[in-house]
Amino acid sequence: MRIDLNSDLGESFGRWELGDDRTLLSIVTSANVACGFHAGDPSTLRRTTAEAAARGVAVGGHVAYRDLAGFGRRFVDVPPAELTDEVLYQLGALSAFTALTGERIRYVKPHGALYNAIVHHEAQAAAVVEAVRAFDPELPVLGLPGSRFLEKAEAAGLTTYREAFADRAYTPEGTLVSRREPGSVLHDPEAIAARCLRIARGEPITAIDGTEILVEADSLCVHGDSPGAVDIARAVAERLRAEGIDIVPFTGA
Amino acid sequence: MRIDLNSDLGESFGRWELGDDRTLLSIVTSANVACGFHAGDPSTLRRTTAEAAARGVAVGGHVAYRDLAGFGRRFVDVPPAELTDEVLYQLGALSAFTALTGERIRYVKPHGALYNAIVHHEAQAAAVVEAVRAFDPELPVLGLPGSRFLEKAEAAGLTTYREAFADRAYTPEGTLVSRREPGSVLHDPEAIAARCLRIARGEPITAIDGTEILVEADSLCVHGDSPGAVDIARAVAERLRAEGIDIVPFTGA
Amino acid sequence: MRIDLNSDLGESFGRWELGDDRTLLSIVTSANVACGFHAGDPSTLRRTTAEAAARGVAVGGHVAYRDLAGFGRRFVDVPPAELTDEVLYQLGALSAFTALTGERIRYVKPHGALYNAIVHHEAQAAAVVEAVRAFDPELPVLGLPGSRFLEKAEAAGLTTYREAFADRAYTPEGTLVSRREPGSVLHDPEAIAARCLRIARGEPITAIDGTEILVEADSLCVHGDSPGAVDIARAVAERLRAEGIDIVPFTGA
Amino acid sequence: MRIDLNSDLGESFGRWELGDDRTLLSIVTSANVACGFHAGDPSTLRRTTAEAAARGVAVGGHVAYRDLAGFGRRFVDVPPAELTDEVLYQLGALSAFTALTGERIRYVKPHGALYNAIVHHEAQAAAVVEAVRAFDPELPVLGLPGSRFLEKAEAAGLTTYREAFADRAYTPEGTLVSRREPGSVLHDPEAIAARCLRIARGEPITAIDGTEILVEADSLCVHGDSPGAVDIARAVAERLRAEGIDIVPFTGA
Repeated sequence: MRIDLNSDLGESFGRWELGDDRTLLSIVTSANVACGFHAGDPSTLRRTTAEAAARGVAVGGHVAYRDLAGFGRRFVDVPPAELTDEVLYQLGALSAFTALTGERIRYVKPHGALYNAIVHHEAQAAAVVEAVRAFDPELPVLGLPGSRFLEKAEAAGLTTYREAFADRAYTPEGTLVSRREPGSVLHDPEAIAARCLRIARGEPITAIDGTEILVEADSLCVHGDSPGAVDIARAVAERLRAEGIDIVPFTGA
Repeated sequence: MRIDLNSDLGESFGRWELGDDRTLLSIVTSANVACGFHAGDPSTLRRTTAEAAARGVAVGGHVAYRDLAGFGRRFVDVPPAELTDEVLYQLGALSAFTALTGERIRYVKPHGALYNAIVHHEAQAAAVVEAVRAFDPELPVLGLPGSRFLEKAEAAGLTTYREAFADRAYTPEGTLVSRREPGSVLHDPEAIAARCLRIARGEPITAIDGTEILVEADSLCVHGDSPGAVDIARAVAERLRAEGIDIVPFTGA
Repeated sequence: MRIDLNSDLGESFGRWELGDDRTLLSIVTSANVACGFHAGDPSTLRRTTAEAAARGVAVGGHVAYRDLAGFGRRFVDVPPAELTDEVLYQLGALSAFTALTGERIRYVKPHGALYNAIVHHEAQAAAVVEAVRAFDPELPVLGLPGSRFLEKAEAAGLTTYREAFADRAYTPEGTLVSRREPGSVLHDPEAIAARCLRIARGEPITAIDGTEILVEADSLCVHGDSPGAVDIARAVAERLRAEGIDIVPFTGA
Repeated sequence: MRIDLNSDLGESFGRWELGDDRTLLSIVTSANVACGFHAGDPSTLRRTTAEAAARGVAVGGHVAYRDLAGFGRRFVDVPPAELTDEVLYQLGALSAFTALTGERIRYVKPHGALYNAIVHHEAQAAAVVEAVRAFDPELPVLGLPGSRFLEKAEAAGLTTYREAFADRAYTPEGTLVSRREPGSVLHDPEAIAARCLRIARGEPITAIDGTEILVEADSLCVHGDSPGAVDIARAVAERLRAEGIDIVPFTGA
């Protein structure tokens, strides 16, 4: 049995540092690396991809709206053709740094408001898919199961991977409970680790209303920039390993 | 006998359009394409590289300081290691669009204040050279003869090409007369064309003080965004062709 | 009888010039001046406010989303409290330049996607109103009749002014026909001028379906950056004056 | 006997937080508040000016080059007329937030590379002085004793204040030892506090080579974003108070 752990990394910008990337890169197996549009100056891209390569962590393009001031967390109504080009630009930029390490971008995961938008937004979902396909039709995407993004990616012939969120509560329908609701974010490392273990084993987990639901996932997202992030990531990894689950990149070791 | 004509293109940004790129792409053989740091939004990169490919025009990476507000015309004292990474980022970004056309970046030419800085600035010249070498050691650079940039590029094993400026006056030492001096910019298309013909033939031209100087060049830079730019470019191309000079990319047809 | 003519001005940015501001400032009586978030570098703000003051043209703060790449034409889901602060920032910045001329900002008109959003978007409409009230409760706002923005501004005790669009087709309900519909934009200067005259006189105009509607307006918006913009603005001004309508700032001469 | 303590504050940007502003605002008497060009989003400006006002801390405009990516620490060769306008823009923007608190900007202190440049750079020093004078000729400036900036400010009729750096080593000539030199930055809170006490009393301090020098200062700069910053600031304030020195804004309580 195996699963992947992914985390958002490389989100510093110039003088501003964010997250404990070095430590997280010793825990996760896939790094969603910011490409400069919501975070990530060029030297951060270089350092992050170099450290990921040194540790055998797969690098994903964490593409985003052009929104440094909002950290890519604000929906922007970008016309689809422009969005395609903005995603291509980011993937190209990141690829210059993965190439330095003898590696390449292994997958694409949209960030923040773009990630959320293309769960439902048809035109933007199609625009991101088109960018990935144009950049490299062999490049897989990572996203939310049931999202329009994954549906369209699959229809376009891209390989798709599904992720679950280690520290987020789920609705009975299997979607995320909004961050504005009480109980939407879990904080106890042991409880989170236990739930991750169930997901990794293909066992049902408990939704916010107490019902049991099945969340199928190729990768578990552990957050990198919240207080306690490293403790949670470590607890999840240790628990999974202790139970005999291999933690390996979903894109292949 | 042969020469290349290059021009700065793709310098629109969002709502703001600059230059008559379509027409210039029907005249020049090498396009220095802005990479987003001084100009060039992603859709402009796409459109410009597509049109260049359609016309067989070689695309060069027109890398610049991160300075939209100043159009890359203000010297920025970027630490060399960061400058290397900023150039890599830009080349990567542009390469996503040349790849769409089945092409690749054919050369690198620094833009504006960066171009001028690395005529003399050792550390920044070395930083740009290092970026090109790291991106692709087969990638040639285009620059000012005698500049530290070309010297260091050559020392690093890069192929170098020299350019002359069609519409700029030269000092007796073969450098450009500062734009602040009277007579530094030529405006008469026929006079410019005649001078370009002499350069292409390897014949001396007249410096601003009347002495004869030899300006060796693999490429002639014709400007794209000044009034009369298209007329000058056309006059130069017609005159050269009329005299039997082939106009072909310096990087090979 | 009197009316105001307003136009979007000061929309250059660094190397990129947009619109024939000098000529339009000789025609209109109110200038919506970009504040740097969608367009307008500091030197453009200075030049535009200086020319406006020299001609007795009232300066309005043309506040926008932070979106140079999209020229403020893309909806951005900015949290309301941040939007309030972003509008305050822009008004403060512009006020430094009106003060140089012995003048002050005379009104606020949101730009582009923000203008369109707050026709309906309650929270963003309230956020802009709060910014204006906090900046100066005596400062009037200019907007679309019937918009949530004007309603909330009025409820907050701000003075409100209504604008009509010289070159846009109206629905039978008195709203603008979407730019995506055929016939949504008028191009004939004489027809536009005739319609403006009817609006200025308080007479009904013909909606896109042929019905007669009444569009009440304190100001007529003439566009500054489309081809023929100056011709249209001039035709409107000349026609109004020829018919005895005074063209004066809605904020008072 | 009295002295002022100043610190650079409000340097967060969007998602990125920097420094412990709340604590420092309980210690210092003057806050150099970032204006958005090197750091400081609008909501940070609002929060910082509000907290400063609540504690009676004087707000200064910490104006900078337009350089978020470099945190304003890279020299930018901005043409002087543009620099004047960029400083005016920043002061206007900040003033919108001081006005909300019933206060106003009390002084101007250039930031980072601009601060260092105008120690010697005549044209940029004059450009900043011109911006302050145009914004408000009653507005004082804070800078390095002996700098061209302070000289030109004085010549232009501005009130000038001199600052000393609590944690920096001085040359025998009374200038700062470059950060690249060993021993250039002091780290021991008690040693720093002792030296600050001598400066506040008008007594000589020991330069890096052991000679005694007199550093006259109206304000002591304590840094806000380095590790141990708060401890140093607190040690300085406590020592000064214990020795009967009043800590009050140099601009008047």
